[in-house]
Amino acid sequence: MDPTDPIAVLAALIRCPSVTPHEGGALTTLQELVEPLGFSVERPVFTEAGTPDIENFYAACGTGPHLCFAGHTDVVPTGDEADWSAPPFAAEIRDGMLYGRGAVDMKGGIAAFVAAVARRKARGEPGDGRISLLITGDEEGPAINGTIKLLDWVAARGERFDASLVGEPTNPNALGDMIKIGRRGSLSGTVAVKGRQGHVAYPHLADNPLRTIVAVADRLMAEPFDEGTAAFPPTNLEITSIDTGNPATNVIPGRSTLTFNIRFSDAWTPESLKTEVLRRVEAARTGGSYRVGRDAAEIAVEWRGRPSESFLTRSDDLIASLSASVASVTGKSPQLSTTGGTSDARFIKDHCPVVEFGLVGQTMHMADERVPIADLEALTEIYDQFLSRWFASRAAVAA
Amino acid sequence: MDPTDPIAVLAALIRCPSVTPHEGGALTTLQELVEPLGFSVERPVFTEAGTPDIENFYAACGTGPHLCFAGHTDVVPTGDEADWSAPPFAAEIRDGMLYGRGAVDMKGGIAAFVAAVARRKARGEPGDGRISLLITGDEEGPAINGTIKLLDWVAARGERFDASLVGEPTNPNALGDMIKIGRRGSLSGTVAVKGRQGHVAYPHLADNPLRTIVAVADRLMAEPFDEGTAAFPPTNLEITSIDTGNPATNVIPGRSTLTFNIRFSDAWTPESLKTEVLRRVEAARTGGSYRVGRDAAEIAVEWRGRPSESFLTRSDDLIASLSASVASVTGKSPQLSTTGGTSDARFIKDHCPVVEFGLVGQTMHMADERVPIADLEALTEIYDQFLSRWFASRAAVAA
Repeated sequence: MDPTDPIAVLAALIRCPSVTPHEGGALTTLQELVEPLGFSVERPVFTEAGTPDIENFYAACGTGPHLCFAGHTDVVPTGDEADWSAPPFAAEIRDGMLYGRGAVDMKGGIAAFVAAVARRKARGEPGDGRISLLITGDEEGPAINGTIKLLDWVAARGERFDASLVGEPTNPNALGDMIKIGRRGSLSGTVAVKGRQGHVAYPHLADNPLRTIVAVADRLMAEPFDEGTAAFPPTNLEITSIDTGNPATNVIPGRSTLTFNIRFSDAWTPESLKTEVLRRVEAARTGGSYRVGRDAAEIAVEWRGRPSESFLTRSDDLIASLSASVASVTGKSPQLSTTGGTSDARFIKDHCPVVEFGLVGQTMHMADERVPIADLEALTEIYDQFLSRWFASRAAVAA
Repeated sequence: MDPTDPIAVLAALIRCPSVTPHEGGALTTLQELVEPLGFSVERPVFTEAGTPDIENFYAACGTGPHLCFAGHTDVVPTGDEADWSAPPFAAEIRDGMLYGRGAVDMKGGIAAFVAAVARRKARGEPGDGRISLLITGDEEGPAINGTIKLLDWVAARGERFDASLVGEPTNPNALGDMIKIGRRGSLSGTVAVKGRQGHVAYPHLADNPLRTIVAVADRLMAEPFDEGTAAFPPTNLEITSIDTGNPATNVIPGRSTLTFNIRFSDAWTPESLKTEVLRRVEAARTGGSYRVGRDAAEIAVEWRGRPSESFLTRSDDLIASLSASVASVTGKSPQLSTTGGTSDARFIKDHCPVVEFGLVGQTMHMADERVPIADLEALTEIYDQFLSRWFASRAAVAA
């Protein structure tokens, strides 16, 4: 396989059915690609009770300013294969598109980066710094045995990164639309209300927890948390589920739960946002327009998972190197954005400045995930130029 | 067994494990009790696709003004038997209490009525009219193959009732508290909202059905339907379940449902109330304080089961005969009430005037359901006096 050809590299990666938590041969394929380019490869396995063991991948080459490319080879499930026009792990090319699960999220980003590095080596330009690939198999899963542990593992070996580029799909519509220079935070929680069960004909003997649930939902949604900040869109709360599970229409239920997720701007920390959520829950308890929590009601708020802080990358060199490369190849001036979901950049930002740029995300997680061949070529060229610009900016700083 | 002893009769009935839809031997026991008293017994089985076959019971004796005693031998499940201090089908007597499933709801009422009739026969007073027992095995279940069909079956045989007494437990705290002279109506429905599923980080690409569900819940609960009427307490709505079933906090759900039940006064018919519910749902769609049903949302209201109309019994003779008997035995002036749940009286009221009086309902449907022996004796005396008074009032009318 020619490592300078991103189409061949991506096809080989797609043919590995690496649905989380399975390695599926994807990391072995990657190892066979980068070792001939001079990279030393290690594949630590991380474990934690209650989650699947996950194989991870770290490859590095060269000395000098250190640029780490971060990503993942695991992919989400295919869903019903009957919904696909091409087998999801066959890497079929049709009408200028390469089809397959992971084509844009994000084996395509990895393929473009490997091809860019291989082209630099073929041109004799590998020696301007240190390049590493930090690749996990647990980005689409619980993300417990993946990037967060791999970063600590690398740090424990004395490695330091000067900057990181995450190859996740960042463009909403067309290559060159958007670079991510930070991410909103994320906080999830469950409000559990315990009332008193009873017969629906005797409401005075019961305490319907759904009155409280509805009042809490109303309070959580009614007021905006903020109007957005200079670099961030407005904080947004979504109630993701309300569940009671009472099949009997003649019974007032005893319990119900409400689960929510908040994507928040840099106006909030996880702690200040928790305080605000608790304030709103308390306001619902005491201030509703209809009877709430009459006597027996208990309201418990439980935070789910680890909240993510919001962050904003403040390295002008890094952002400028990437923006200029995107503009040079696509002719577009990419938006510097903090929108969208979380990514492993939320872990990397604790180690070094991080930016994100990859393919167009439109088909990610869907049937017929696919990438235009032209986009893959263009992304390879963008990554290649980015490496040149960033190493040059570091050399200028050192000089 | 001595049929004039309500304790012995009730114990025999409790020992029949007649959890809906099982006959459990209860109707056979009843047949063996009343045939020697001169009753002719028939036990029609009613069927309907999708529901269990149900055995029913009709016994009648005598000629003249016709009083029908109505009830059921089926009982609700025991729940965890470990929660009982006595086996639920053992009819254990302890500290003046008879324990067992069905003790008050409503094998106790049947036992008292059978004993009252047996005492009248022993005294030579059975000949003042016609007495029937209309007993179903499907009151606690779907109520499809029970009283409603049995009433039609009896009517098809040319039988006509002049009045009916239902022996359900009607007293909140002590025997003599309350006679039921009507019942509120009942209407149940489900509001199903279909929005558009999506990633929680991209709410502008999704349409969260829970915004609509919360707005609908708020509108349904916010305003009282009425303040009650002369004979009825205020109409009350309870939301009995909200369900989404979305386990992923990073996903905006595509659908959710809300189920409600309304117990309503005679200010409403099922049809006028349906119109009001639909008006409130529509108001929620268009008038919320936060974005509702942005574009893709569809709201569907489905009525559940058959609504019950409210009704009020307007037979002064019937009510007076029962009130006077209760007062004579208990020394209390019973409240004439339309509170509480529905009962099979909602079907009987289409055939004749109906009143309801039975034991104290406090332990019904609970572990350790039980009846004071003294209450059982007193209820037998009340039923006996009631028969005398009511037949006398009919004789006076005829004279």
